[in-house]
Amino acid sequence: MRRLPCTLAALLAVPLLAGADEGMWTFDAFPSAKVQAAYGFSPTPEWLENVRLSSVRLARGCSGSFVSEHGLVMTNHHCAHTCIEQLSTASKDLVRSGFLARTAAEEPKCPDVEVNQLVRISDVTARVRAATKDLAGERYEKALRGEMARIEKECQTSDQLRCDVVSLYQGGLYHLYTYRRFQDVRLVFAPELAIAFFGGDPDNFMFPRYDLDVAFLRVYEGGKPARMKSWFRWSRHGAAEGELTFVTGHPGGSERALTVAELQFQRDVALPDRLMSLAELRGLLTGFRLIGEEEKRISTAHLFYVENSYKALRGRLEALEDPDFFRAKAAAEASLRADIAKVPERAARVLPAFGAIEQAEKRLREIRPELTALEHGFMDSDLFGIARTLVRAAEERPRPNEERLREYRESNLPFLTQRLFREAPIYPQLEKLLLGHALEKIRERLGPDHPAVKKLLGKESPAEVAARVVDGTQLRDVAARRRLWDGGAAAVGASTDPLVALSRAVDPDARAVRKIWEEEIDAASKKAHELIAEARFAAQGRTTYPDATFTLRLSYGQVKGWKEGTREIPPFTSFAGAFERATGRDPFALPESWLRSRDRLDLATRFDFVTTNDIIGGNSGSPVVNRKAEIVGLIFDGNIRSLGGEYGFDPATNRAVAVHSDALLEALSKIYGAQRIVDELQPSGRAAARAKQAKGRRGG
Amino acid sequence: MRRLPCTLAALLAVPLLAGADEGMWTFDAFPSAKVQAAYGFSPTPEWLENVRLSSVRLARGCSGSFVSEHGLVMTNHHCAHTCIEQLSTASKDLVRSGFLARTAAEEPKCPDVEVNQLVRISDVTARVRAATKDLAGERYEKALRGEMARIEKECQTSDQLRCDVVSLYQGGLYHLYTYRRFQDVRLVFAPELAIAFFGGDPDNFMFPRYDLDVAFLRVYEGGKPARMKSWFRWSRHGAAEGELTFVTGHPGGSERALTVAELQFQRDVALPDRLMSLAELRGLLTGFRLIGEEEKRISTAHLFYVENSYKALRGRLEALEDPDFFRAKAAAEASLRADIAKVPERAARVLPAFGAIEQAEKRLREIRPELTALEHGFMDSDLFGIARTLVRAAEERPRPNEERLREYRESNLPFLTQRLFREAPIYPQLEKLLLGHALEKIRERLGPDHPAVKKLLGKESPAEVAARVVDGTQLRDVAARRRLWDGGAAAVGASTDPLVALSRAVDPDARAVRKIWEEEIDAASKKAHELIAEARFAAQGRTTYPDATFTLRLSYGQVKGWKEGTREIPPFTSFAGAFERATGRDPFALPESWLRSRDRLDLATRFDFVTTNDIIGGNSGSPVVNRKAEIVGLIFDGNIRSLGGEYGFDPATNRAVAVHSDALLEALSKIYGAQRIVDELQPSGRAAARAKQAKGRRGG
Repeated sequence: MRRLPCTLAALLAVPLLAGADEGMWTFDAFPSAKVQAAYGFSPTPEWLENVRLSSVRLARGCSGSFVSEHGLVMTNHHCAHTCIEQLSTASKDLVRSGFLARTAAEEPKCPDVEVNQLVRISDVTARVRAATKDLAGERYEKALRGEMARIEKECQTSDQLRCDVVSLYQGGLYHLYTYRRFQDVRLVFAPELAIAFFGGDPDNFMFPRYDLDVAFLRVYEGGKPARMKSWFRWSRHGAAEGELTFVTGHPGGSERALTVAELQFQRDVALPDRLMSLAELRGLLTGFRLIGEEEKRISTAHLFYVENSYKALRGRLEALEDPDFFRAKAAAEASLRADIAKVPERAARVLPAFGAIEQAEKRLREIRPELTALEHGFMDSDLFGIARTLVRAAEERPRPNEERLREYRESNLPFLTQRLFREAPIYPQLEKLLLGHALEKIRERLGPDHPAVKKLLGKESPAEVAARVVDGTQLRDVAARRRLWDGGAAAVGASTDPLVALSRAVDPDARAVRKIWEEEIDAASKKAHELIAEARFAAQGRTTYPDATFTLRLSYGQVKGWKEGTREIPPFTSFAGAFERATGRDPFALPESWLRSRDRLDLATRFDFVTTNDIIGGNSGSPVVNRKAEIVGLIFDGNIRSLGGEYGFDPATNRAVAVHSDALLEALSKIYGAQRIVDELQPSGRAAARAKQAKGRRGG
Repeated sequence: MRRLPCTLAALLAVPLLAGADEGMWTFDAFPSAKVQAAYGFSPTPEWLENVRLSSVRLARGCSGSFVSEHGLVMTNHHCAHTCIEQLSTASKDLVRSGFLARTAAEEPKCPDVEVNQLVRISDVTARVRAATKDLAGERYEKALRGEMARIEKECQTSDQLRCDVVSLYQGGLYHLYTYRRFQDVRLVFAPELAIAFFGGDPDNFMFPRYDLDVAFLRVYEGGKPARMKSWFRWSRHGAAEGELTFVTGHPGGSERALTVAELQFQRDVALPDRLMSLAELRGLLTGFRLIGEEEKRISTAHLFYVENSYKALRGRLEALEDPDFFRAKAAAEASLRADIAKVPERAARVLPAFGAIEQAEKRLREIRPELTALEHGFMDSDLFGIARTLVRAAEERPRPNEERLREYRESNLPFLTQRLFREAPIYPQLEKLLLGHALEKIRERLGPDHPAVKKLLGKESPAEVAARVVDGTQLRDVAARRRLWDGGAAAVGASTDPLVALSRAVDPDARAVRKIWEEEIDAASKKAHELIAEARFAAQGRTTYPDATFTLRLSYGQVKGWKEGTREIPPFTSFAGAFERATGRDPFALPESWLRSRDRLDLATRFDFVTTNDIIGGNSGSPVVNRKAEIVGLIFDGNIRSLGGEYGFDPATNRAVAVHSDALLEALSKIYGAQRIVDELQPSGRAAARAKQAKGRRGG
């Protein structure tokens, strides 16, 4: 029940004030002059380009970096967890044991990882504005979606590219982001989960921490390690207290520009509701895991996802529940409205946008039960997701590109099919649990007499439906998915697959409520935010950064602890601390490899550390680099205070949490015998590393 | 996500306006004149006395009624569920199969049911006021507690009595309630859970309903059925639409007089937090039940409790999240403050009380993690509850009565020991699950480094601690509990029982935070509410009813449907509807006995119905009686709109849900062959009942 302190309230009184080290900046508008003023260093365009091209995005929602010329990618263990789990079997659990490829030939392909590198940013605002001029509601939504799809399709000249038109500043700007896609991604190294996630859920979003949350992957091209032109070198000294640090990565989404009406909806409706769903699912999975070891193994990744989401959203809710925080947000909005009102013509045009958003939120409250149940209610079931993709693709693909549901636009099909045709294992027992639970909750939300519920359940129970369709479906077989994809509407319509039938039965209801959301709520809210953003630019210029949108951003800051109440939290932990904290019991049990190596280790090695960089979910796996663009750390978390960062940044207590670069080298060389990776990270530093290793042996 | 309508907002603008049929009235101040004005019937003192003495309270939190001269008690199945489960075994599951004692000799004793009958109400306000005059904080709290304990002890001249000083109108009045205790309570009849709770959790708090949520118990004295002087007769015609109905029972608690600061705390902190805990526990139990049939059987009652609480609290939260509702509450408070301010002396004395409550809520936010974790965090574990009772009793019993923690005061010891020494089964597997989960959540709330967490866990995991203490404890054995109770502090201090040791280890921490709560928060808030209540009486007189406090109340109303949006909900359902709605799958599966009897039943029989009576949790098992004080129904639920009744009554949509008296007779005689009970309910109506039965056979 920790709460954001009052300093934050003071800060928020100025909207999106990019003071202190705040900001998740786009690469086309990085405030080098500000960094110069604060830290005496000004990133040049060349520096920025190198950093941008050395940064990667994991398509399913993480960040990473190229750390060698040979396509070596550094990210978090928790970002590669799904791959590690998918490469495991009942007899060989890599999540538990860790993994090291001793040679390139031993690097196995991740079934479901795609790496993207941002190669170009172009401004397409004028083109989008021209297409949506004077439109509203459904017509606005269609024109916007159509123009974005057209731009993306023109851009996407090969399957090796991914083109996304992204909205920045809530529609204040539209940019085209072009990525190079790497789809052959292999696993090089992962430590044991026990050390990657030491402290587990209790320590998640906490500090001090003692986690080696790292995984190394490698991108391949034509069956060989890809040759990179840009990559990050390794720092020989690592991060020091007070040092200027940059974090480059893909913050997933923030909501700092939400209006008060939207924040209220989050606080009173969306967040509590989602949290209760997550809490129940968390309990359900925990209970399921009591059945046996196999149930435990196949549900670990999903439980992690649920617990992590739960804690993150809970932190957000607590930020919004703080009366001071909320008052500050209201004051900030009042001040923006006053600014807008200074020009009467602008006031008349823009101020009604706030009311329009409020109306949209009211409408959302009305349709939310059906939207949540029918459009989002199945998201925990992989199999249902596959069935829905096939059913919808059959209907969407014959349509003109710009009239399709957004995820079926041409430019997104490579990504969509990569997920659809992945060979990742699907566990029927877990699927039955999750689909049965989803059906149960849909009935709970809509009531047993709702027509869509009757279509889904008939006279069966949720568990019976789930068992029947999971046992009966062919969709675990990738070839069967391909047949339905290739066969299109005719094949999907004629399919007797029970899961396809289930998805087909409820799709009209789901689409109907999604349509209301898109046309009456999302379109109205987008258009209103666009107006407000334009007015904000007019009043203040482009002096600040846009909300996070899972696009590449750069933040600056420094290595620095903070004050928690009256307690000073120092910025570093050490290996010694990990051994002190260990209880021998999960999640505070150090792995065997660590206990065995203890005497060899330099226990003074810095383990984890905190910085003032402004990051958020999606930044996981981001490198922390110094002014020479050398790796000094690896982001893997934020402290509990950082969770309010969704809605505002508090420089006093919001901290990014990273693994220190020294800890990575020390562990790779002395615990894991991964000299091959150490050498690759430090082509010019082998001698230094070996010397350090020798010293460690003596000193232990 | 249903929300209370705006009409409620209008209503709430006048605080606690006892208009419409609102009100949970005490028997000493029932508004007979109001009922006369609205319905042309005025309950006389004799009528009221008969109704009061025919009403009973189940000590663990339900209501009921005497329905024969021979101590027959009618209540809900869900109120007797624990008894029914405790009388079951792995091979004979009475929850599933139902139960009928064919003779008095076959009526088994419920291990853990106590029935109370309210025999006297006396006003002790002046005595309490004299004891607390001019005191505040800890001294106020101690004086208040001490005087209440003294009054109760003086009253309690025998173990057959229970004496409670109850605070009414938030301390506006203190009354002494004297109950006659019946501790030998036996099970007479229970239907199958499948029909008692047809529709299960999905239909809970919903209407239309088709539930036979009834159980008959019998109170014994000296090994024989007790002879009653007062009991309810059975109506020959049952409830009709528009008919005046009374509900007598024990509403557990309402919070209609909370200040805005307190409501905010409920909305933003207490309710969401508790709901997330319940949601997770619900999931955990649901997952646990997947392990096997035995796990299912031993956890059904606890899951019901969790699901029921979850839905009830969720309804409350939704009421508070309605902006209109909240604004109305704020307006009501402003109007009360304005009333108080009319007399300057009163204003100066009373108005600061609102600020004092706000301060208390702030302090509560600070200590809440520890209070929730250490004082309330173990409540799902029966065994831990037993251990804590023993540990605390050893410390409390040697103290003067008025200085003890309230639950250890002399007058409460009979109740406490009845619970402590009950022979109810305890399931080690379920205990390990719940205690392990409790420890896990305590660590999550306080962090692994909190001193109390270290005392509880040491180097073990929560599951290990739970397994060790549950396997190692002797406290499943009632004799072992008696030894520790009788042995007092010496025995408890010397005990090596691991569960006693665990409870002992954390008790100082738990007591410390409870002390802060009692002295800094509860005392301040009580004193402030007392001031406000006195000022309200001064301004308005005693024209309204006090918030519910699990004391006997009488409400009046009528049989009446309501409008849900544009849909009219009729007040009655029928047996035919139950057969139509049945799917054959839990929780919509009718039991075999019903399917078998279908042809014999009069399908037009009224099954469940709704009334406008103002009730709340705790009223479960209440009789619905007509102006002749005859049974016309049996309360078992409220509709979803009734959940906001915690904070205010909306006559337009708040409805009580009851089983119709006709349905009870029809089912008892034609489905369950329980003519013995039917005859007992209708000593003068046997002929009529038999005739009806014969007609049913023909008509089926």
